[in-house]
Amino acid sequence: MKTHTKAHLKVIPLGGLEQIGMNMTAFEYRDTIIVVDCGLAFPEDDMLGIDMCIPDITYLVENKEKVKGFFITHGHEDHIGAIPYVIREVNAPIYATKLTMGIIDHKLEEKGILEKTRRKVVKYGQTIQTGPFKVEFIKTNHSIQDAAALAIFTPVGVIMHTGDFKVDYTPVYGDTIDLQRIAEIGKHGVLGLMCDSTNAEKPGFTPSESTVGELFNDIFAENRDHRIIIATFASNVDRVQQIINTAYRYGRKVAVEGRSMVTIIDIAQKLGYIRFPEKTLISADDLNKYPDSRTVIITTGSQGESMAALSRMANGTHKKISIKPDDTIIFSSRAIPGNEKDVSNVIDELYRKGANVIFRDIHVSGHACQEEIKLIYSLVKPKYSIPVHGEYKHLKAQERIARALGYDTEHIKILSSGDVLEFNEKGQAKVTGHVHTGTVMVDGLGVGDVGNIVLRDRQHLAEDGIIIVVMAMDSASGTIAAGPDIVSRGFVYVKDSEDLMEDAKEIVSDKLVDLEDQKVRDWSRIKTEVKNVLSDYVWKKTQRNPMILPVIQEV
Amino acid sequence: MKTHTKAHLKVIPLGGLEQIGMNMTAFEYRDTIIVVDCGLAFPEDDMLGIDMCIPDITYLVENKEKVKGFFITHGHEDHIGAIPYVIREVNAPIYATKLTMGIIDHKLEEKGILEKTRRKVVKYGQTIQTGPFKVEFIKTNHSIQDAAALAIFTPVGVIMHTGDFKVDYTPVYGDTIDLQRIAEIGKHGVLGLMCDSTNAEKPGFTPSESTVGELFNDIFAENRDHRIIIATFASNVDRVQQIINTAYRYGRKVAVEGRSMVTIIDIAQKLGYIRFPEKTLISADDLNKYPDSRTVIITTGSQGESMAALSRMANGTHKKISIKPDDTIIFSSRAIPGNEKDVSNVIDELYRKGANVIFRDIHVSGHACQEEIKLIYSLVKPKYSIPVHGEYKHLKAQERIARALGYDTEHIKILSSGDVLEFNEKGQAKVTGHVHTGTVMVDGLGVGDVGNIVLRDRQHLAEDGIIIVVMAMDSASGTIAAGPDIVSRGFVYVKDSEDLMEDAKEIVSDKLVDLEDQKVRDWSRIKTEVKNVLSDYVWKKTQRNPMILPVIQEV
Repeated sequence: MKTHTKAHLKVIPLGGLEQIGMNMTAFEYRDTIIVVDCGLAFPEDDMLGIDMCIPDITYLVENKEKVKGFFITHGHEDHIGAIPYVIREVNAPIYATKLTMGIIDHKLEEKGILEKTRRKVVKYGQTIQTGPFKVEFIKTNHSIQDAAALAIFTPVGVIMHTGDFKVDYTPVYGDTIDLQRIAEIGKHGVLGLMCDSTNAEKPGFTPSESTVGELFNDIFAENRDHRIIIATFASNVDRVQQIINTAYRYGRKVAVEGRSMVTIIDIAQKLGYIRFPEKTLISADDLNKYPDSRTVIITTGSQGESMAALSRMANGTHKKISIKPDDTIIFSSRAIPGNEKDVSNVIDELYRKGANVIFRDIHVSGHACQEEIKLIYSLVKPKYSIPVHGEYKHLKAQERIARALGYDTEHIKILSSGDVLEFNEKGQAKVTGHVHTGTVMVDGLGVGDVGNIVLRDRQHLAEDGIIIVVMAMDSASGTIAAGPDIVSRGFVYVKDSEDLMEDAKEIVSDKLVDLEDQKVRDWSRIKTEVKNVLSDYVWKKTQRNPMILPVIQEV
Repeated sequence: MKTHTKAHLKVIPLGGLEQIGMNMTAFEYRDTIIVVDCGLAFPEDDMLGIDMCIPDITYLVENKEKVKGFFITHGHEDHIGAIPYVIREVNAPIYATKLTMGIIDHKLEEKGILEKTRRKVVKYGQTIQTGPFKVEFIKTNHSIQDAAALAIFTPVGVIMHTGDFKVDYTPVYGDTIDLQRIAEIGKHGVLGLMCDSTNAEKPGFTPSESTVGELFNDIFAENRDHRIIIATFASNVDRVQQIINTAYRYGRKVAVEGRSMVTIIDIAQKLGYIRFPEKTLISADDLNKYPDSRTVIITTGSQGESMAALSRMANGTHKKISIKPDDTIIFSSRAIPGNEKDVSNVIDELYRKGANVIFRDIHVSGHACQEEIKLIYSLVKPKYSIPVHGEYKHLKAQERIARALGYDTEHIKILSSGDVLEFNEKGQAKVTGHVHTGTVMVDGLGVGDVGNIVLRDRQHLAEDGIIIVVMAMDSASGTIAAGPDIVSRGFVYVKDSEDLMEDAKEIVSDKLVDLEDQKVRDWSRIKTEVKNVLSDYVWKKTQRNPMILPVIQEV
């Protein structure tokens, strides 16, 4: 009897489930793959010298001809940052809302590939048909405007992907998340809900972005005589708009500092997502034309990044702005995990300059807390819960929410990147396989050319530096023609350690004479012996373990 | 007319006021200096390869013959960690309470200098006379036992130094802080109060250590069927005692893991500061002789340190213990600023292994909050407030408390390390000078031999690695005898970048031929030109900036 395999839907996260960042999920049905999001991750502390990480897209490259589109939920780096790299390998159209596309366009332009890339701006409520898939963009709220959830209609059922979202009943700009449409789609039956887990550990309901505006109002009222400097996330256009509105209300001019801040505000302004009341925006060069009590500076650096504008103002290396004792400085942000110490150092520096620093709670999250997640589940009523976005503990926290709502183990799918979650024609889900995934490190122009060996070397070099032993050998006689010469970097300051280096040289010389006497001509053996004798000596003398690199030159 | 200078008291913080750690203050009167505390600081993130930092004690070394004693408030690293280094330079007796001295002795023994060092164990209430100084040790509470405040009686008045402290009315072991004696000294008049600022930003009153015991009790009751693993600070002997007591109550055996934990418990047990009910303590090797529900493991690693026992259990590299899905793991700690991400990574790893992780609030601080600080001020009623211990923002927070208590600017002295605060014979205080201070980095056996140049090289090496260009030159003719050979480490993986390295070699060769044609014999010019041409090429091709090190050998 001939069996006929009915087509299945495969949902394959290619990143984003092992860490914060690198969000990317493939949806595959027969000959078509569509991809939701294409993000980067910021490097971990031990990834020395690495600029960013992007997902390993071997699976997409191998199925290049199947890939029919990239659907982007919103314009944050962890959802769009890998696009310039991925699109060079897998060229398919990009679909996104207007502001999201504006930010993507800027990235593509920087890399000189804007013209080559097919892009289509999508409106909320609009549906894109791609082979067997229909993808509808649905309005949500988030800490950047124009965020969308995606309803992915497939032959075996609907997958609802929330993207990053929160429920904001009083957003600063635009509408509340389209709960009606989400409910309507839910009412017709949804197979799987892929829902943002970032705040799933947090009880309650994330406050509205507009509550921050009220705080700004209070702070401006209390600090009428002081210059106000506000550090926030560059991409939070609504936050910036609220600062502008408050500044205008209090008759202050606004200057913007920090490259990413200037870029995003520029894009948002051109596309109509941010509005400066007439003559409110001034150049940082013109700040000194106004009294301090009449200016506000919006700046990058809310994460304590050493090169960002606020840090440079704090440590006195900013070209245009230096901190004054009467400044009021507001961190309208929270420290992203891993940045706490840097933020704390900048705050301390600002305090030392005499400034008044306001740090706590002038910020709300852009992610749904537990009650919002429950609301979405109750509107969508999916057959399967598929928690996404976040570390494992966040996914587990959403699992607990799903359980509380009555889902059993069978209907909650906690995936790892690379897992193939297959929905059969009856809409039954099962992990049926695993595709290759991973992290590709980007360093300068190099994508993936820094691997574990190079990183391990960098860690070794960072720890104790390097000692280089150069020897010239006569290729005919096998005797030493010159050297050994010893050079070190990052090990000890040579002027303070002349004896050590002299002794080291002597020890290597002795070893070479020894080997010469033994008529050893095998150069790799000579290198190994030099390395061993020197490494032992250095450890004994210093208890350090620098990299030792013998180089033999034939003359 | 001949003027006669009356003797003044100088208070000189030699560390601890610019950062957390390196606590050390000199008190000088005529020919006598006594030193309070002698701590280390853990290296900042950009101090690559550095093991620890200690204060620059140039001032003490220059006044070596004056230094008559080190008075230590308690046994934490940031108060004792520099002793083995400092005592070799400035040999004076050490005074400390029993447990504090036990921990110091262990350090001195490790360095083989225990016998050479004069030490005296001091009891609470006991006074040490040293020249014009009389120093009384006063019982306080802290997150380690045997902590002391010091009342320093001097010819110009009394300075009260709290050390690190909290007010614990229900301590696990020993007595409440000796508020009566502090009040009594205060009643007689105190010139200056040097008070712990660490928690000065926090309102209220730090809860008693014994409240944590109640939490342990609840957790043990709820997890009767699971193995329990508790990570906490090694030195918090009271915390460990409470775990032991709870374990005993629930019929569980206790194993201890992690080198520092084993060391401290061993010292505390020998000195009678910790008690294991009979047969409660077992070796980790014997854990498998008992059911999981009958064991508790106390371990290091509460800060997510990659080499600590808990991290090794989490990532499967611990020799004896691996995490099981039913384990309950308690972090009885908070993440020290800078460690948040590491802690979060370990927790995620534990979750992945299926364990139940309890992180929040199974910990209390060892430092006084605002109400406790106010209490101490009200008992001591010093003439001058001199906030100590903490970053600048913490000192400023204590300043605000002092202001609220009626102190004016004149009577609050916020010092920087090195400031000389001079009290004249009338008990008037003024900063009259500044002595040399700084941070000395310790790397392996080297103390201070890693300076800024070496660190900058390590940072450079860490960022993009190194390219070494080796050339042999004929010293007679000035022509190239061999090479150039190019070797790199931490730059790119050579096998993937053969073309790049081949091209680099060619470019250097061309430049050398060029220079040979021009009859350039100046080797440092040759090096510079090679460096420039290679660095330009590498930047153009990779947008990376590895260290480039040309080495010329004469043959």
